[in-house]
Order: sequence, then C-alpha cells, then structure tokens
Amino acid sequence: MTDDLREQVHAAARRARVAADELVLATRERKDAALHEMAAALRARAHEVLEANAKDLEAGGAAGLSEGLLDRLALDEKRIDGVAKGLETVAGLADPVGEVLRGSILPNGLELRQVRVPMGVVGMVYEARPNVTVDAAGLALKSGNAALLRGSSSAEHSNTALVAILRDALETVGLPADCTQLLPCHDRASVTHLITARGLVDLVIPRGGAGLINAVVQQATVPTIETGVGNCHVYVDASADLDVAERIVLNSKTRRTSVCNAAESLLVHSAIADEFVPRITAALQAQDVTVHGDGAFARQDGVAQATDEDWDTEYLSLDIAARVVDSLDDAVRHIAAHGSGHTEAIVTSDVRAARQFTARVDAAAVMVNASTAFTDGAEFGMGAEIGISTQKLHARGPMGLSELTSSKWIAWGEGHIRPSS
Amino acid sequence: MTDDLREQVHAAARRARVAADELVLATRERKDAALHEMAAALRARAHEVLEANAKDLEAGGAAGLSEGLLDRLALDEKRIDGVAKGLETVAGLADPVGEVLRGSILPNGLELRQVRVPMGVVGMVYEARPNVTVDAAGLALKSGNAALLRGSSSAEHSNTALVAILRDALETVGLPADCTQLLPCHDRASVTHLITARGLVDLVIPRGGAGLINAVVQQATVPTIETGVGNCHVYVDASADLDVAERIVLNSKTRRTSVCNAAESLLVHSAIADEFVPRITAALQAQDVTVHGDGAFARQDGVAQATDEDWDTEYLSLDIAARVVDSLDDAVRHIAAHGSGHTEAIVTSDVRAARQFTARVDAAAVMVNASTAFTDGAEFGMGAEIGISTQKLHARGPMGLSELTSSKWIAWGEGHIRPSS
Repeated sequence: MTDDLREQVHAAARRARVAADELVLATRERKDAALHEMAAALRARAHEVLEANAKDLEAGGAAGLSEGLLDRLALDEKRIDGVAKGLETVAGLADPVGEVLRGSILPNGLELRQVRVPMGVVGMVYEARPNVTVDAAGLALKSGNAALLRGSSSAEHSNTALVAILRDALETVGLPADCTQLLPCHDRASVTHLITARGLVDLVIPRGGAGLINAVVQQATVPTIETGVGNCHVYVDASADLDVAERIVLNSKTRRTSVCNAAESLLVHSAIADEFVPRITAALQAQDVTVHGDGAFARQDGVAQATDEDWDTEYLSLDIAARVVDSLDDAVRHIAAHGSGHTEAIVTSDVRAARQFTARVDAAAVMVNASTAFTDGAEFGMGAEIGISTQKLHARGPMGLSELTSSKWIAWGEGHIRPSS
Repeated sequence: MTDDLREQVHAAARRARVAADELVLATRERKDAALHEMAAALRARAHEVLEANAKDLEAGGAAGLSEGLLDRLALDEKRIDGVAKGLETVAGLADPVGEVLRGSILPNGLELRQVRVPMGVVGMVYEARPNVTVDAAGLALKSGNAALLRGSSSAEHSNTALVAILRDALETVGLPADCTQLLPCHDRASVTHLITARGLVDLVIPRGGAGLINAVVQQATVPTIETGVGNCHVYVDASADLDVAERIVLNSKTRRTSVCNAAESLLVHSAIADEFVPRITAALQAQDVTVHGDGAFARQDGVAQATDEDWDTEYLSLDIAARVVDSLDDAVRHIAAHGSGHTEAIVTSDVRAARQFTARVDAAAVMVNASTAFTDGAEFGMGAEIGISTQKLHARGPMGLSELTSSKWIAWGEGHIRPSS
C-alpha cells in the first residue's frame, strides 16, 4: 500500500514535470488568461464547490472538529468570490519569470544576464483552509511552476472540487491540466513521499505547525522553505512613548491571535517598569489577555507565574509571556534565545536604540514603532503571499511571486572561448 | 569519542555565533582592515606556512597520494602571494551587508526596506587545496559571517598554520579570532556533526565530489548549498558554424579537465553529423581526448563504444561522451535526463534555436556560442567565488559575496498599528 502511495506521488510529480516543461514556455498573456478563466469558472461552478464543502463540513462535524477548524473549512459564495478575486489580483501582478536581475557585457564581449526562471515542480503541504488550494495554484501558475497540492484530509471534497475546476480552466486556455494536481491526503506518508522525491520535485513549502515543520526538516531531501512559526516579541525600550507602546503591544497581541505575526512575548525595560508594567497588564487584561509574567509582572493581580516554557511558546491565543529586562542588550539576548526568527518589534524614541535593535536582532522582519502584525505579503505590497518564510536561505519573510522563482545565467557569444590561465 | 567530537564541533559553532554577533556590527572599514592585515601577515609569515605544508607533503607522499593531489596540496611563495592578493581583491569589493534590495514607503507611511544581512555561522567542507581555507575565510568575513572550516586531513598542518595567521590578524584589528575556526578533520563524523548542528549553524557549503554532496543531502538538517558537480554538455545545432563549434568543443573539454565547468558530453545534430562527426572526433583525438560515442561516433577510428553510464559520467579527464541527436528537442531531452544543472552550451547561428535552448534547458548557466568554461565567479565579474551552486534554492551558478547573505525586512513607523480586516 505504502509503495503504491509512493508511486502515486512520484507519478504525479513526473506528470508535473512534463507540465512544467510546457509552462516554462508559456507567455504571461496565456498564464493570465488561465488565471482569469479559473476565476470565472470558480464563480460559475460555485455550487459544485459548495456541495463538496457541505460534505466536508458534515464529516468534520461528525468527527468532532472544533468550531474554529470548521469555520476555517467553511466556504460560501462570498469566500469563493474572494478566492476568485485573488486569482484576478495575481493576474494583474508583473510576471516574475524573465525578469533580468543582473546583466552586463563582459570585457571579452560576452553578453551576460541573470534572469528569473521558474523553480519547476513545487509542492505545498497545508492545513484545513481550502482557499489555500486556489491561492497556491494561482501563485505557482503565475510564477511558471507546476503545483503538487497536499491539503488536509478534512478538506478533501472541497479541494477535489476546486482542483477539478482549476484544471478544466487550464485546459480551456490550452495549458496542461497537470500544472495543478491534488495529492492523496489520507496518509501522512504522502507528505514523506513528496519531501523525499529528490530530482522529481524542486521545492516543497510546508505551511503548518511546528510538528509538520520538524518532520520536514528531519526527513526532507528535497529543498524546502519553512513557513509560519512565529514567536514574535515586542520590546518596550526605556525611551518609549508609553501611549505608542500600549497601542503597539495591544495590536500585536490581539488583532488576530491565530496568525504567525501575532506577538507572543513582551519585554519591558526596567527603567519604565514601575509605570508601564501595571498599565500594560491592565490594558491586556481588559482585552481578555492572560499575562504569563515573572518579576514585576508576576506581582500584578491576575498574572500567571511564567515558567521557562512560556518564553518559547507560540500561544496563538489570548496569552502573552511578559518579562522585565535591564537593557536593550538583555532584550536582544532574550530574543536570540527564544525568538523564531519571524518578527520582532521595538518601541523607542531613541535613534541609537532603534539602530542597534534592527542591526542586532536576527529575524525576517524587525519593526520600529510599528505592530508585528504588518509582516504580511499584502501589507508589504507584494500583492499576494504564499507564506512567511522564517529561514534565511532563499526567501525570508513574506513570500510573493519572486520568491517562487530561481535564476539562470544566460550568456550570448559568437564563438567565445576562454584562454588558459 | 564521537560524542566528544560532536561537542567539539558544537562548541566551535557556539563560539562562532558569539563572533558573528559581533561581526554583524563591524563596519566595512574594519572588515577590509582585517583582510589587508591577513594578507600582510600571510606574506610576512609565509615560512610558517611552508614548513607546515612540507609536513603535509611528506605525509601525503608517504601515504601514496597521487601527483595530482600532491600538486593541489603544495604551496610555495608564489601561491601564498596569490591567496594574499585574493584577500586584497575581496577587500576592494563592495560590502554586500546593508545593501538595500527593495524599499518603499507604504500607503500608511511605514518606511519599509529589505536589506542584505549576513547568514551568521557558515560551514565549509572542502578538499585538498589549502588555499580554499584562506579564500573561504576572506569571503565569509567580508560578508559578515563567522566561518567553520572543515578541510581535508591531508592539509591539516597547512590549514592549521594558515588559520593561526588569519586569527591573529583578526585580533590585530580588534575583531574576534573566532570569526575563523578550523574544525577537526580526521573523522568524517565531524562533517556529520556540522551538517546536523541545526540552530547552531546557518548554512553549510560542501565543495567536493558526488559522494560528499549525497551524504550531505541525506543527512543534513542545516540548510546547505550544493556545489561543484558538473556534467556539462555542448550541443552543436544543425545551423552551427563548424569552425566555431570545433573551437568551443575543444575549449570546453580541454582547457582544464579537472574543473566542474568542463564539458563531459557532446551532442551533434544529425543534419551535420556526416561532416562534423569525423572532424570533431579527429580534433579531439589530436588533443588526446578519448571519445566515448555511439552511432555515427562509434564508427570512427579509435572511438570507444559508449555505454549508458557514459551519459551520466563526470569524467574530469580527457574523455568525452558523444552522440548524434535528431533535433534540438532531443538534445534538450538528453540534457534533462543526464545533465547536472551546471552549464549547458549550444552552438548555433539560428536565433530561434538559441532562444529555445536557453529557455528550455534547466541549468545554472546556458551558453550560446561560448565555451562552458566561462561559468566562473571571476569571469562573471563577481571578483571572487566560493563555489558554483547547482541547486535552484537561494543561489544558482557562481557564488560571490551576495550569495553568502540573507536578507531582513526593516520597517520604521511612529506608532503604526494594523487595522482589523
């Protein structure tokens, strides 16, 4: 059975390669036509998707999925229109393929340029939300990649309906349906087969919790990009404007608690602790946030004593770890020890502190007097996002179309040979 | 013992992190001063290096190393001056750290920029040549990275002497000596510990043969960049100028056979086979190249019958696999099946063929009417090179200083919070 599954995944990857070899030659016009066709077909055939989605919701309810998961799984006309609009937005973005990154005429006359090219075959592993299926297919297509989509089993009917519509749209404009394929989703082993299909798959992007990311890191032989784990800190410096600090802490923590750019830890400089610790504790508690603190924080009413574990926890809930630090140095060291390299913020009015913090903190994004919530492809002006990379290799921070490409050096000569050295 | 070795590697990585945290704040002035000091110290203390090198050569001779390996291991005043000049060249290159890659003021007034930052702690695994020790240390330093160098045991004395001089030079200019460290080299396990030191090491670059690369791919949990394996092809199209074709094939094959950008396979379009196959066979044989051919090639005097294995072999010697293909399509397919993604060349006078070949061949570099030998950091104007990446993630082709960096998004605001959506 497992060997069958392996062969199923590999066969899909081989079909994806054939599709990718055709897609690399597709003009932007054709790719955009496919995206518009996909959007129109999703709207026209929304009923098919909703019927399939109803089956998933029924099965999810019977299986006892939480309200939150069921909500993420649920589609309606408005959500389908939303993903269709997303495809139209992607059609409006510049084509990353062919962009000349560098180029020059070498001293010997060789014309050299480095151009963006598709990765080739890209795998995506993701969880409940079926809209990711459409987003990922659209971004992969625009960046010239064939997509292997491995969604959650709880969304199987929805994903199957969506992918059938996307594949029909590809064929309508004369592109291979195998640019978009759904992988078997019932067995964790299909993820293993995907991330070990070296040579068949060029890149896998896992979107999910620490468990998935860890499994991928340990087992993958295919290149991968880690996304989506964020233990983000807000550090309130001695020189901070406390009104600004309160606003940023509250927004970073409470705007949406389930997202990776939400703050999970608060660090307050000791020079302002007497004033700011009671104030921010009360403000957080007024918004139903449980504060897990030590030292001055632990002495406030209703604060839970922080354990070592709290500093490393991505709560994704109305909880925050909080501690007083004696210096910017201590804040930087705390973040180095406990941060996940996603987003770190400083609130300060001191230029030197801001410069030190941005230079020394090692993370995908560093905010000065701004909420951690801004780390987002749309906010950064990328138009669309496939995830937020927390690794340093290839892509760091929000990943748009460019981050789904590789590059190639092309040199044109007229019989150029290299002399012996 | 193995646990001791693991702890030794991890302790070196932790010292490297402390050094990297200091190095990230070093100005270009200070880094360049270190590079010049290193160069001066290498020249002033050349005798120490030569004494150590003599021990390595003696041990290598006794252990029966080949003439070729002994030559690569050997240092003399001129080679030491060469590596010192290399450091001075690197000092003259622009600092990649801090380069602003993108930036804008967002609609809400947030000032956003994406800047290059060092990777942090970078490991290098390489073979005999001790000059790589100095090159790698210099490139890592300039790009703000602490280097963990794992050279070959045959060069242990030379590398130890070189690194002692480089570390003294770092201290002379007030930078941490631990920016440059040599790892134990007697046990393959030190490589394993390096590539699994996740969280302690940010990037490992293996430079070596397919065996090393494979071990790294299978075992690594640290991000890696594959370098240095090249099964490069020259495809002579139907429309090729045969004088140009002969020149390019000979240069690609014979300029230096031991390097990864040397051609290992020749593909000739059937329309010109009658004329070109005898001609290029004779020309290659006149330069002592053994041709491993099938079909029309196999019918030439002195040609060895090619086996399936030949198409996948990186000879690194005066051998070439040769075959006649019926179309550009067939050439592209042969390269997709057997190429290693390094450098592929077409000789053609037909613009359409050149465009098709450059668009469809998936490799780090594609040459039109130019020798495969041009794929090289210095030739491409990078000033220096740490290796040639054959992977698609992060860096592809010659890797200079920029390729040793990651990036970071920095946003400056004045109390910016993100509205609920």
